[in-house]
Amino acid sequence: MNAEIITIGDEILLGQIVDSNSAWIGQQLNLLNIRVQQITSISDTAEAISNALNLASKRADLIIVTGGLGPTKDDVTKQTIASYFGKKLVRDAKVLAHVQGLFTRIAPDKIMPKVNQAQADVVEDCEVLFNDVGTAPGMWITDKDKYFAFLPGVPFEMKFLVTNRILPKLKENASLQLVEHRHIISIGLGESFLAEKIADIENSLPENIKLAYLPKVGLVRLRLSQIGESDVPVDFYHQQLVKRLGHHVVATKDVSIEQAIVEAFANDNLKLATAESCTGGSIASGITGISGASAMFDCGIVAYHNRIKQNLLGVKEETLKEFGAVSEKTVIEMAEGVKKLAGANYSIATSGIAGPGGGTPDKPVGTVWIAVSGKYETKTKLFHFRNDRAINIERTVAQAFAMLWNMYVNDKSN
Amino acid sequence: MNAEIITIGDEILLGQIVDSNSAWIGQQLNLLNIRVQQITSISDTAEAISNALNLASKRADLIIVTGGLGPTKDDVTKQTIASYFGKKLVRDAKVLAHVQGLFTRIAPDKIMPKVNQAQADVVEDCEVLFNDVGTAPGMWITDKDKYFAFLPGVPFEMKFLVTNRILPKLKENASLQLVEHRHIISIGLGESFLAEKIADIENSLPENIKLAYLPKVGLVRLRLSQIGESDVPVDFYHQQLVKRLGHHVVATKDVSIEQAIVEAFANDNLKLATAESCTGGSIASGITGISGASAMFDCGIVAYHNRIKQNLLGVKEETLKEFGAVSEKTVIEMAEGVKKLAGANYSIATSGIAGPGGGTPDKPVGTVWIAVSGKYETKTKLFHFRNDRAINIERTVAQAFAMLWNMYVNDKSN
Repeated sequence: MNAEIITIGDEILLGQIVDSNSAWIGQQLNLLNIRVQQITSISDTAEAISNALNLASKRADLIIVTGGLGPTKDDVTKQTIASYFGKKLVRDAKVLAHVQGLFTRIAPDKIMPKVNQAQADVVEDCEVLFNDVGTAPGMWITDKDKYFAFLPGVPFEMKFLVTNRILPKLKENASLQLVEHRHIISIGLGESFLAEKIADIENSLPENIKLAYLPKVGLVRLRLSQIGESDVPVDFYHQQLVKRLGHHVVATKDVSIEQAIVEAFANDNLKLATAESCTGGSIASGITGISGASAMFDCGIVAYHNRIKQNLLGVKEETLKEFGAVSEKTVIEMAEGVKKLAGANYSIATSGIAGPGGGTPDKPVGTVWIAVSGKYETKTKLFHFRNDRAINIERTVAQAFAMLWNMYVNDKSN
Repeated sequence: MNAEIITIGDEILLGQIVDSNSAWIGQQLNLLNIRVQQITSISDTAEAISNALNLASKRADLIIVTGGLGPTKDDVTKQTIASYFGKKLVRDAKVLAHVQGLFTRIAPDKIMPKVNQAQADVVEDCEVLFNDVGTAPGMWITDKDKYFAFLPGVPFEMKFLVTNRILPKLKENASLQLVEHRHIISIGLGESFLAEKIADIENSLPENIKLAYLPKVGLVRLRLSQIGESDVPVDFYHQQLVKRLGHHVVATKDVSIEQAIVEAFANDNLKLATAESCTGGSIASGITGISGASAMFDCGIVAYHNRIKQNLLGVKEETLKEFGAVSEKTVIEMAEGVKKLAGANYSIATSGIAGPGGGTPDKPVGTVWIAVSGKYETKTKLFHFRNDRAINIERTVAQAFAMLWNMYVNDKSN
């Protein structure tokens, strides 16, 4: 089964929000072996909506549409959908009661505005996807053997409806073709060296097994995809690749490096602590964003001011005076200080000039020192990123995790 | 001028990465009054690429394509582009020298793989968009009065080429139609109440000025867009809305609440500190992600373990024993403790059960206490989110910023 996703709303086109909904839907459908072949973001005009529905329904079996179901005027979606299917809008009594109930809970002494009442309008004869967590109902429409789902764009409402209304429906559909994915997360080899190292395995892949490279800062993710049945199953090639890449393999499934770190540290009863200056909490939030992080993370310090670096982390006044906050000596003292403070086995420290301000001829924007301290030693690296603030922070975080992983693997093999 | 963006690569369709490139390009084009009318994400197959180019070129004047220019096999983009325009691929000497130079810098003792050499191949007669920061060159092609730009998908390379190669080109184009946007960030009013409160202003808008609502957790962003000339300019309506919304207005330009907080605190010489448990550094990284944060932020503590809450923040053992870590008393002591520790004027503290583990019948997943401590008082709120870990964290962060903003505005008017 092939699917397409259509997102409605100027906010994505204007770049005011990033379309994370579609990525999430893509993941969910992929798990059900439904291939998303196109994602289309369009404006909330009748013409754009009709055209997109028309084109998508010619290419795909399942069309999932998000957005354009809010209570305010800028939404013409429902009228357009109704006309597209040659239907009227009708007010759904159950949805109206639900919307009224939610409204009364929030504002018991006010009368519900008409725009909210209109949220209970749905396309005639559609299957209402009841929205327990918000006011905008979803709609499911089957038309000429094609399935259409219309969902609100608010991420947690969309996720609720996909999880509880749409996926159960799709799981019952027997026509799904088998697709199997296998992943390897590798570290320490650039994309082209990696490609050369595994060229013979890649060349031996059968027609229906495809290898894709997804390079990220400091690591490369490999994805093997088997479409349909295969005489030699995808697991065979997966194992070959894992064996060939040896200690470059961080994980043999599709996890982030943060997940790999949290799992490995929790398994080995190790604790990590962080002392962040230029990354300002991003390393800690990357780790604590992973479920189960509390087993291996107790404490992170965002030491933005030198006073905090001294008082909390024990960075020496002389160090800051002689070398400055962005220096190898400072990150070493930060890393060792927080490790001690938190009673951890490993620690990460960062100090740098994220930009756009704060650069000097000596230490231009993008100058970043990272220290990783472990059981046996403290290692440092100096980076010269040349990007904007957000990317400098992101790359520092990625490099810090890569350094930590390398030390962890190294210590483990000792 | 109308534009479309096409992103190539299975990673977006599979949901393995979120398409943040398109949002960024949308923002840049919008500043030049170029309207992005569609964003299309497709697979890296010749058929999908040809079809997308064909459809987009019928609708838009400018087509920006990202992705599919990496050095490895899964990329058929360049061959397909060349055929689409009826051209051949030719190897560019200047690009080849650049790719070789970059390679030698990284691996001076190795011979460059063939896949890297092929990165210097470009479509015959195209204008090469020289890529100073990476190996994949961009290409600019004019065909039947339509402009096509092909860019690598690596975000910082794409951004480099857009900023330094494409925007300068577009700025010279005289045919651009005038579009003006004005924004209001409002807090404390739900979307429908807001709509009712400003209904008469909205109804008085001329045809060519459009009002859009973008609700986010805890706030609503309003956008007025004027297309072409207007007798009554958009600023008039913007001022009317600002006046009507009064103290609900956080900002009169398109900024995030983090930006508004950093600017306001820096202007007023105020310092903020954070003590985070369930948000794990996300509040600190939200603040420090804003350029200039160092003027108002010195210190953040991620106190994941109770020991850290006690030792660093001064949370009392009795408090933790009697009420638990997720309690009003704990977040009050965390907020007041970090304020004192950091010597700050305001502080935020969070403690909750982000999930998916850790819930109890008494305190289910999504139970979150937030405290905000200011010049005169400490205020708390209890939330019952019912989402997954990432969203629970995101919503906690958003609510914490909203609480902080409200206290700041309240204190200021006192």
